[in-house]
Amino acid sequence: MGCAADNGVMTAPTVTATVQDSIGVLTFEAPERRNPLSLATMRDATERLRAFGADPAVRVIVIKASGPAFSAGHDLSEMVDRTLDDEREIFAACADLMSTVHAVRQPVIAQVQGMALAAGCQLVATCDLAVAADTARFSTPGVRIGLFCSTPMIPLSRAIGRKRAMQMLLTGDMIEAATAVDWGLINEAVPGEALEATVADLAARIGQFSGDTLAIGKRAFYDQIDRTEPEAYAQMSEVMSQNAMTADAQEGMSAFLGKRAPVWTS
Amino acid sequence: MGCAADNGVMTAPTVTATVQDSIGVLTFEAPERRNPLSLATMRDATERLRAFGADPAVRVIVIKASGPAFSAGHDLSEMVDRTLDDEREIFAACADLMSTVHAVRQPVIAQVQGMALAAGCQLVATCDLAVAADTARFSTPGVRIGLFCSTPMIPLSRAIGRKRAMQMLLTGDMIEAATAVDWGLINEAVPGEALEATVADLAARIGQFSGDTLAIGKRAFYDQIDRTEPEAYAQMSEVMSQNAMTADAQEGMSAFLGKRAPVWTS
Amino acid sequence: MGCAADNGVMTAPTVTATVQDSIGVLTFEAPERRNPLSLATMRDATERLRAFGADPAVRVIVIKASGPAFSAGHDLSEMVDRTLDDEREIFAACADLMSTVHAVRQPVIAQVQGMALAAGCQLVATCDLAVAADTARFSTPGVRIGLFCSTPMIPLSRAIGRKRAMQMLLTGDMIEAATAVDWGLINEAVPGEALEATVADLAARIGQFSGDTLAIGKRAFYDQIDRTEPEAYAQMSEVMSQNAMTADAQEGMSAFLGKRAPVWTS
Repeated sequence: MGCAADNGVMTAPTVTATVQDSIGVLTFEAPERRNPLSLATMRDATERLRAFGADPAVRVIVIKASGPAFSAGHDLSEMVDRTLDDEREIFAACADLMSTVHAVRQPVIAQVQGMALAAGCQLVATCDLAVAADTARFSTPGVRIGLFCSTPMIPLSRAIGRKRAMQMLLTGDMIEAATAVDWGLINEAVPGEALEATVADLAARIGQFSGDTLAIGKRAFYDQIDRTEPEAYAQMSEVMSQNAMTADAQEGMSAFLGKRAPVWTS
Repeated sequence: MGCAADNGVMTAPTVTATVQDSIGVLTFEAPERRNPLSLATMRDATERLRAFGADPAVRVIVIKASGPAFSAGHDLSEMVDRTLDDEREIFAACADLMSTVHAVRQPVIAQVQGMALAAGCQLVATCDLAVAADTARFSTPGVRIGLFCSTPMIPLSRAIGRKRAMQMLLTGDMIEAATAVDWGLINEAVPGEALEATVADLAARIGQFSGDTLAIGKRAFYDQIDRTEPEAYAQMSEVMSQNAMTADAQEGMSAFLGKRAPVWTS
Repeated sequence: MGCAADNGVMTAPTVTATVQDSIGVLTFEAPERRNPLSLATMRDATERLRAFGADPAVRVIVIKASGPAFSAGHDLSEMVDRTLDDEREIFAACADLMSTVHAVRQPVIAQVQGMALAAGCQLVATCDLAVAADTARFSTPGVRIGLFCSTPMIPLSRAIGRKRAMQMLLTGDMIEAATAVDWGLINEAVPGEALEATVADLAARIGQFSGDTLAIGKRAFYDQIDRTEPEAYAQMSEVMSQNAMTADAQEGMSAFLGKRAPVWTS
């Protein structure tokens, strides 16, 4: 199935999910509408991420998009002339999608081939890692249409800091991929023709590690990041002690000391 | 009125406030003393910021200074041979000024034409945005006079991170405008002769947006920044849902979908 | 005494502590094993840092290492085939070392002449300041041996931000010294032959300031960094008011106003 967008009505699915070489790939498939994060799309994406999360065959997740844009953000046609409860439904689905990116056990990489706006920029900021084409651009332009990007600001301000987040939020200006690297919004910008291979290589390199270890580490990261340092140490000392007792850590340390390659159980 | 500084006694006001083209401009006017943030100056500035905050004609606020220095920080002559309560009065007034910069509904831009030291650097770090002349310099030199910059460190460490804040705080060294941009203390450095026009353009661009939307977004930013991500999402999802129901958001989204310019009510 | 490492058994001490020109220097002295942070080494280092902390003759602390590597991290031979309580003992000692770096009254500078891995990278991230040889490299490679760097991530993510910390943690890749400067993990990278002199100069410049003021400021920094801004202001306003009443602040301000050099009591 595809999506019928010529009449402005979306038909599910606008998201596809495939698993290849142990990499789960979630793809936004409404290129002619610049991949809006409609309510249906966000729910569909969340469901598919959860399915990846529960699939032991998936070692790393990549979120990508079809067409020239990564995502233009929310579907505004769903937000005009609605009730407050309608709006709440949309932002609850959005928060659910973002928290699911953090909740799944696998690392999630954003593969950003084109512009990422508003909630699209939020999704890039939320992913564990992000690689973009050097022509990709980023913006939180809600201020220009009267709807300040108050949920995108959550991961954005935590990724790039206060002054730069305020600049993006208050002006709605586009920033270039090189600036996004400089500010820490994304990890790397590469020529567009190298994007797919760069992300595939990064995913494969991470995917070779123990799945249990990656899951422990990812959960630990978001568990500690909002805590005071003493609290974080109390918690992480126990996490790391327990991690050290796992089969994969014992194997990994033994292999390292024995100068041989480890064989993971997960 | 001016200020009599030759005998070391300040006469109010050392701050002026004007509104032009919907931009509220607060100017420190004690250039010959390098614009110290005396108790009177801080209180005066706070009062004028609050007046701007209550004035619907003011869409953006700019804080600037007369003379070669932006501000040398607190007025040390007020802090020698005083009681503990005297000192507390000064730091309470300082905290009041800084929190007012965040509390007013309009975005606040620091226009930094010269050196910003100690509480002057703190004020730059506190403003929502900051643009400086490329010859401006920044420092938290309290350690050199035995009075560590413990309140300036609050916005400084939150703007530029730990290692760089510690470097500035422990050495008191000056950093150049280009470094301040690189570290995220300011948004941009421009040739001195372009500073006024650059800030005016930035203020005008922001000032064209809905005043209600800017107020919602600014408040949201500081409300979410100190929270855990789950708390921030719970809060911001409601903020953004309510924002979407406002007249200006409905107008902005409708105008965008209709490919016309929006007409704001605020 | 030295350390006998040829048979894999460490004999204390692997750490030396000296005081010269008011600078306390802690040196890791197991170069042939790349200065592992064994349980004995961590406890020894912690004890010596505490001794420096209690020594009024020590104005600044430098942590350095012998040989080509700064530290390869924990001693894996201590972590294989152990009980959970054994692992807990190691990570408790590690957390104790890191919190002691923050708890001592003097600024602590990491002098990084070679690679800093895992807990070695964590120690660099934890120090108040860090200067490295331009050939030094940094990594959190635990993921490669099944033991995710969940305690190193605490100071790492707080120093360099989310996306970059995740990149280091999920890939285990080495980053160069120049990148470490760019990301804020260290303050400066210099040619290896200039490292000793650069750190000595930095320590001497900081060491000339009032010891009480440095102690007040350092404690204040870590007290405020994990708090909300309103809480931080409430606390720091009192800290700074009390600081202003100290003998050294009164002397420093008087000296500044009198255009003379201050004479510290501490």
